[in-house]
Amino acid sequence: MTIENLSQAKVFGGWHKQYQHTSSALNCSMRFAIYLPPEASADNPVPVLYWLSGLTCTDENFMQKAGAFRAAAKLGIAIVAPDTSPRGEGVPDDPEGAYDFGLGAGFYVNATQTPWNKHYQMYSYIVEELPKLVEEHFPVTGSRSISGHSMGGHGALTIGLKNSERYRSISAFSPISNPMNCPWGQKALSHYLGNNTEQWKQYDSVELLKSAQATLPILVDQGEDDGFLQEQLKPELLLAAAESSGSDVKLRMQPGYDHSYFFIQSFIDDHLRFHAGFLKD
Amino acid sequence: MTIENLSQAKVFGGWHKQYQHTSSALNCSMRFAIYLPPEASADNPVPVLYWLSGLTCTDENFMQKAGAFRAAAKLGIAIVAPDTSPRGEGVPDDPEGAYDFGLGAGFYVNATQTPWNKHYQMYSYIVEELPKLVEEHFPVTGSRSISGHSMGGHGALTIGLKNSERYRSISAFSPISNPMNCPWGQKALSHYLGNNTEQWKQYDSVELLKSAQATLPILVDQGEDDGFLQEQLKPELLLAAAESSGSDVKLRMQPGYDHSYFFIQSFIDDHLRFHAGFLKD
Repeated sequence: MTIENLSQAKVFGGWHKQYQHTSSALNCSMRFAIYLPPEASADNPVPVLYWLSGLTCTDENFMQKAGAFRAAAKLGIAIVAPDTSPRGEGVPDDPEGAYDFGLGAGFYVNATQTPWNKHYQMYSYIVEELPKLVEEHFPVTGSRSISGHSMGGHGALTIGLKNSERYRSISAFSPISNPMNCPWGQKALSHYLGNNTEQWKQYDSVELLKSAQATLPILVDQGEDDGFLQEQLKPELLLAAAESSGSDVKLRMQPGYDHSYFFIQSFIDDHLRFHAGFLKD
Repeated sequence: MTIENLSQAKVFGGWHKQYQHTSSALNCSMRFAIYLPPEASADNPVPVLYWLSGLTCTDENFMQKAGAFRAAAKLGIAIVAPDTSPRGEGVPDDPEGAYDFGLGAGFYVNATQTPWNKHYQMYSYIVEELPKLVEEHFPVTGSRSISGHSMGGHGALTIGLKNSERYRSISAFSPISNPMNCPWGQKALSHYLGNNTEQWKQYDSVELLKSAQATLPILVDQGEDDGFLQEQLKPELLLAAAESSGSDVKLRMQPGYDHSYFFIQSFIDDHLRFHAGFLKD
């Protein structure tokens, strides 16, 4: 697997770099970004936090707006930010170009329905292909944690819950907690997976938490003034599901905060410290 | 003077807000942004750092990408970010739409030449109109400092040097230090001010520093791997001019850093602490 460097910039003594590669899972060329803290070297590989972004984002939104590198540099954690969907010629999009489905909206699932299934295999890309690539090319250990925002919070929770042997800890900002039960999720899951809602449960954090055995530690932050809270996000259902199975979910409701990266930057240091406690065990 | 609130978001316990108003200096509608730290209130007004952005920027670039609010919240400093030029219908732009002149490139001067002089009065806007508006509408004191990046570093230095009674301290990232002597500056100054280069000196930091009496404290950070360093920025000339007049300029060359907001976010905390030392005297 080869990768091509597209950009690099020094930040807080470490390096932010963007790469392009051909994804076999997604059948297209993909871009991702990595932040390597100053201490990362072949002799001193560092653990990795995977960050999954929300609707409309690329690898750039978190890296430019979250203000995460100061803490990542200090804690010695690499951060990898993939794109949010397959891209490029031949990759189908929402017929009306809507922001909540298709390009920029892969929902971190493996699509089973045509025409989506040829490219929209974001679950396999994030769980298998990308970590393999990262661990082959960069000075990182096999210690991984996963976090994300909104659609990416949904991705982090579902991927972490389904792969507890591959990650140390999970966190999310404003996750789509119960996609089976909200407009964004229902639109995406019906197109990517078809109308049999039994198939949707494997990508629904509330459903996964209900039947969870021993889950990884989970931290969730949610702004109380988030305009999507009631209709799309529903974190209270996460908490109820976690309680029913005795899972380890800490939900923090944050008064006055909205759905933006201003919210994320206010609490990202807490998330990095949370993950560091498990990544560097 | 009335202002209209366009957006607000809580961040690090304070508030980021965008406003629109009719500028009499610029003869058009303008947008600016303010960050108010948590402690700011009518009973506890806070000092203000004015941030001037570089070519192509609006009020949003610094506010979204600099990661400045954590330190501003802690230090109790408001930050005001104006746009970089007049905007809107009737405001002339570079005939070829170039990024380095016209819209997004006001260079913080008062234009004397037609057709630019009707709107391009950014110097007066930043020095007089904007602080008056801010001090009328927000819980801030009259303590001001000024900073900026690239074209905005040039703006911060020239405005601070020419108005030492109005500011407490000056800082800059990667400033255009000697605009009379670089392509960006020569293009802008010749159009805005005409071909008499004597007129340019009032907006040239090197010229101002040569003849400075007692200047404010000045901190400048410059990335050594900045692609614009040799041709456009020339901070070594700042230092030479400061030495000739005994002015207080601290220039820090930062190995490996480029011209981007990744560089700015790496050192913005130092600048905020630098200004806080003078603003909160």
